[in-house]
Amino acid sequence: MVGKFISFEGPEGAGKTSVLKVLIPRLQAQYGPQLLVTREPGGTDNPVAEAIRDLVLSPDYPTMDIRTEALLYAASRREHIQKTIKPALVANKIVLSDRFVDSSIAYQGAGRGIGFEAVRKLNDFVLEGFLPDCTIYFDIRPEVGLARIKAHRQNEINRLDLDPIEFHQRVSAGYHQLAKQDPKRIIIIDAEQPIEQVIEDAWQVVNRILKMEE
Amino acid sequence: MVGKFISFEGPEGAGKTSVLKVLIPRLQAQYGPQLLVTREPGGTDNPVAEAIRDLVLSPDYPTMDIRTEALLYAASRREHIQKTIKPALVANKIVLSDRFVDSSIAYQGAGRGIGFEAVRKLNDFVLEGFLPDCTIYFDIRPEVGLARIKAHRQNEINRLDLDPIEFHQRVSAGYHQLAKQDPKRIIIIDAEQPIEQVIEDAWQVVNRILKMEE
Repeated sequence: MVGKFISFEGPEGAGKTSVLKVLIPRLQAQYGPQLLVTREPGGTDNPVAEAIRDLVLSPDYPTMDIRTEALLYAASRREHIQKTIKPALVANKIVLSDRFVDSSIAYQGAGRGIGFEAVRKLNDFVLEGFLPDCTIYFDIRPEVGLARIKAHRQNEINRLDLDPIEFHQRVSAGYHQLAKQDPKRIIIIDAEQPIEQVIEDAWQVVNRILKMEE
Repeated sequence: MVGKFISFEGPEGAGKTSVLKVLIPRLQAQYGPQLLVTREPGGTDNPVAEAIRDLVLSPDYPTMDIRTEALLYAASRREHIQKTIKPALVANKIVLSDRFVDSSIAYQGAGRGIGFEAVRKLNDFVLEGFLPDCTIYFDIRPEVGLARIKAHRQNEINRLDLDPIEFHQRVSAGYHQLAKQDPKRIIIIDAEQPIEQVIEDAWQVVNRILKMEE
């Protein structure tokens, strides 16, 4: 495959979405239709992955088992890879995904308590060795991230914001374990810096990856 | 758990469904509401498992990746175990399921070529050690089973009937490997006998299991 695949990861309130909002137009100006922006769960122009996303996020099933949830995220990811990401890479595109496999390991594995290794192994079945060329991890202490969320979206309560601080601490620890195990792929950005600096750091990493030869 | 869980497995044309049609009323007469009859994919009174079943069997997605399919079957099974089967066993019920985990390993793993071990490992995540008390396997040579199907349902073409004989041979080999690895759980019945004898054999096994002490 000749394109480049970069995933964006981080806990709540790390500014990942704000950074993407600035980076995407810049990259679109530079690369035009060569750029594909997607996200998980689900995926751009992927009806199966989106149908699974709808199922797992549906308010109709509030008591869904956490392993069922992890399996549905995994199914959605498999379709996302096979039908969206890999074909785009074969066509020499640049693929940016807001969340990918590390989210499952950090949130379901470490955070929800299924276990880091169990969710990692489940995702071995999904990935068959496929991984992003680079993953940008927006690092922020859970209490700082949550304080940011509370300050910025007073009218919008996300289900995750209601979880205890210990949940967010386990997610953060899961991400750090991933970064430690795969330091070549996962680039850590200090997301506690002023947002302009976070954007600048992410922009530098993206450019370095896109200019790198295979 | 105090109830009993028996799964019914076998390739196409083995007579599994015909046998269940005879056994279920007999058991209902004897056990009344203590009997729970269910099936996979999906599951009795299980909206999440049924929603996943609808998704995986939907004609809207004819090109679904085989690993996505296996993950969806696994997600559906997890919900089936957690919300239908285990609560029934805790309530001392007798649970009969038309297909369970062995179908995934034989059909997706061996038949479709994902690999016996890969699908077995995926289902370790689902089962966490949970298995039926007994699995009745209706054993028939693939060519005999397929000939039966062709003779009996001339107007009804099942997608599986259209697969080449080699597919059915791999499924059959997968089931035999499972039976060899777990001979205590998987009881093989010769499904090439006259149907009355197959019913009688299955009836004997079911009664033996139901009369067994833990």
